[in-house]
Amino acid sequence: MVNYNKITPAVLTALKNIVSDKFIISDDDRRAPYAHDEVTDSRYHSMPEVVVLPENAGQVAEIIKLANKELIPVVPRGAGTGLACGAVPIYGGIVLSLERMNKILEVNANSLYMVVEPGVRTDAVQVAAKKENLFYAGDPCSGDSCFIGGNAATNAGGNKAVKYGTTRQQIYSLEVVTPLGEIVNLGGRLEKMTTGYSLEHLIIGSEGTLGIITKLTLRLMPLPQHVVDILAVFPDVDSAISMVPTLIKEGITPTCVEFMDNVTVKSVENFIKEKLPESDKGHYIILQIEGQSEDDMDDKSVMVDELCMKNGALSVYVADSQKIWKARKSFAEAVRHESFIHGKEDIVVPVDKIPEMMREIAVLSKKFGLVTRTASHAGDGNIHLNILKGSMPDAQWDKELETFQKELYAVVYQLGGKLSGEHGIGYKRRQLMEQFADPVELELMRSIKKALDPNLILNPGKIFNVM
Amino acid sequence: MVNYNKITPAVLTALKNIVSDKFIISDDDRRAPYAHDEVTDSRYHSMPEVVVLPENAGQVAEIIKLANKELIPVVPRGAGTGLACGAVPIYGGIVLSLERMNKILEVNANSLYMVVEPGVRTDAVQVAAKKENLFYAGDPCSGDSCFIGGNAATNAGGNKAVKYGTTRQQIYSLEVVTPLGEIVNLGGRLEKMTTGYSLEHLIIGSEGTLGIITKLTLRLMPLPQHVVDILAVFPDVDSAISMVPTLIKEGITPTCVEFMDNVTVKSVENFIKEKLPESDKGHYIILQIEGQSEDDMDDKSVMVDELCMKNGALSVYVADSQKIWKARKSFAEAVRHESFIHGKEDIVVPVDKIPEMMREIAVLSKKFGLVTRTASHAGDGNIHLNILKGSMPDAQWDKELETFQKELYAVVYQLGGKLSGEHGIGYKRRQLMEQFADPVELELMRSIKKALDPNLILNPGKIFNVM
Repeated sequence: MVNYNKITPAVLTALKNIVSDKFIISDDDRRAPYAHDEVTDSRYHSMPEVVVLPENAGQVAEIIKLANKELIPVVPRGAGTGLACGAVPIYGGIVLSLERMNKILEVNANSLYMVVEPGVRTDAVQVAAKKENLFYAGDPCSGDSCFIGGNAATNAGGNKAVKYGTTRQQIYSLEVVTPLGEIVNLGGRLEKMTTGYSLEHLIIGSEGTLGIITKLTLRLMPLPQHVVDILAVFPDVDSAISMVPTLIKEGITPTCVEFMDNVTVKSVENFIKEKLPESDKGHYIILQIEGQSEDDMDDKSVMVDELCMKNGALSVYVADSQKIWKARKSFAEAVRHESFIHGKEDIVVPVDKIPEMMREIAVLSKKFGLVTRTASHAGDGNIHLNILKGSMPDAQWDKELETFQKELYAVVYQLGGKLSGEHGIGYKRRQLMEQFADPVELELMRSIKKALDPNLILNPGKIFNVM
Repeated sequence: MVNYNKITPAVLTALKNIVSDKFIISDDDRRAPYAHDEVTDSRYHSMPEVVVLPENAGQVAEIIKLANKELIPVVPRGAGTGLACGAVPIYGGIVLSLERMNKILEVNANSLYMVVEPGVRTDAVQVAAKKENLFYAGDPCSGDSCFIGGNAATNAGGNKAVKYGTTRQQIYSLEVVTPLGEIVNLGGRLEKMTTGYSLEHLIIGSEGTLGIITKLTLRLMPLPQHVVDILAVFPDVDSAISMVPTLIKEGITPTCVEFMDNVTVKSVENFIKEKLPESDKGHYIILQIEGQSEDDMDDKSVMVDELCMKNGALSVYVADSQKIWKARKSFAEAVRHESFIHGKEDIVVPVDKIPEMMREIAVLSKKFGLVTRTASHAGDGNIHLNILKGSMPDAQWDKELETFQKELYAVVYQLGGKLSGEHGIGYKRRQLMEQFADPVELELMRSIKKALDPNLILNPGKIFNVM
């Protein structure tokens, strides 16, 4: 454990010299929002000593150099929509907010790429692409609030990963400020590359512990011209989930396959105060299909309809896209509405193991008497399991949750799964990481961290324990 | 520079105890083939002191532990089909050949994956998938001889990267022996993952300098049922290459777009002693298109035909697939036939920069009076530029090539390109790497190497200079 220094008036002055007085936040009221992300349990909140808002990579580099000299921790922060406390300054120090670096620098419609700063909202990226009849494939549920830089730092997944992969696959190159305050460009606007280590891939998903992303070059695609959302209602979980391998084997790659169990459908319905189709009857599978032409679209829709019915669907609709996605994207809010404090697991397992995982979740929930809500990106094996605290006392909740998680992740790892599909480890899952990750793998990660950040100033205490 | 120890009789005995007498090669004749890869210039050859053939990860780990203890360099080797001397033991020591680890361990047709050892030939992977009506998308030109482990170590690209990406995208997970001799599993059979650093991506493309791959879990896909190869002949380079953006913007993703200039077409024709269509008239674009049905296939073929003609093609054929791919895959052999010694550049640039790069290559070749042959994976910006030595004296060749490369890569980097698209840096390009890579990036790579391989025993002197 490093003995970090506190921020002195001299350090504060030095910071002001870098970004100017105006972009330093040191009063309590204005610092408070930077003490947490979307995790509601206040025991996971921690106040930064100061919040600094740089406007370019040069300023970020200067801040990092200063922090190394003074041995002060720096926690990079995007929109603060994280779910694993990755942006929470657990050792105090500096929160380096990238909110001012919010410019779309270039949209190149001929060569299909976009250059953006990290503080651009993800939906702004989507909109800017669409304006040119192009498509940015990253689509986290929090797209209307999260930043693209945070998407890269956590390798955000989202709804379209089944077809287009995670954020990793959408990134050509990154400008990064290293933990020692150097500016470097990693990757390239290239479809192939074997020119030394893939450091861009190392940075993506490293949750701000190995570098601060200050610019991103993103891959764009032609905008799919024909898209349809299909809602299929199933009487039981197994037949619903079995749609995933069924579709893949038939050569249909849906853009996404979302699963909401019946209890969750009702919870969402109650929250958004809108009647959802057949919400009294079964579990939802939401499928999005893209086609090259209207004919192609029609062919695929018929095929999907037939396959769903064959797999036991009660009914299959062409869905009201706006309504059904509003329902899906309200899941997190609906859960929060039911229980302000809740455990938010982000399980990922091989796609063919989802039915088994769902059964185990049901067994464990029952065994522990815990109320759970589940929404899954079923097409990619990512299960969002939310556990409601309700009125359970803190001490009991902590103990129950810990034991539950222990049994849960033992099953997850047995099935070839991992701790987190898209939310990241951050601070919240770091003890689970220490328990469940291969010790050799952990040691490799720690070695890399120490090698690149010898003073351990960059987002310390995240992913694994501080050394 | 590390002062490595020589292999003593005691070390040899220890190695024999690990793999048995039978799997140690120490006599000159049988060691000789392990002194080089496909690079023909004997000045890039170097004899190993001993070749060791382990049969499992446990033995690999023991060899690595011994090498650390004794400070002896270990160079992992696949099929030795590399083009950058990545598997050449430039400091002597041990060549660890993975040729005995050649088993396909599992083909899972239901869950679409395959588990293989690193010494399986790439075409054997393709064939095993096809047997189950499935598809492995990696397709380097040397598929009939290279090993899948080498494909991962160099992030091999090949012909189908335009649609399916490089080897990186085909890999779910790796079993790796670390430079300290620990066995670890990295990645997972998962479509999403944010559970610590992406070490699997760091290992892929690290050319055996950060770990030895001992097992791979590969992604399979349903076998495309309808495939057509189209040959379009163009009167000039620009109109040929312009097919790439044209197709992409029309929403057609070809499996590959290969380019062979007219001189290369004739060179190949001469080598395979077969008349190629319209070889007297122009430059070749070979396009592979996949369709979901015969109708879809027909529609796409017509569309491609129209787009080619609109872009100025002289003629467009449905190609005789076997013949045209034989021609394309004979490029390397044909060049070798023309000049046993030749420079083999593996330029990669953004796809939209190919025409400019091709023009610059023509200008530089003329300026230096060098005879060049070019075949490009045009769809992904990867240009194989071969420079023929012919009867030029060694000293003049070295000097000319060096100056030529310097000017060439200055242009490549100016266009946003990199040193290598798919062959890797190895030993052959390491000086160019030191010259052209960002010094900060190089320093990050060196730090990671030192952190994971503190004794620098694993494939030292590759990618960058030994520290």
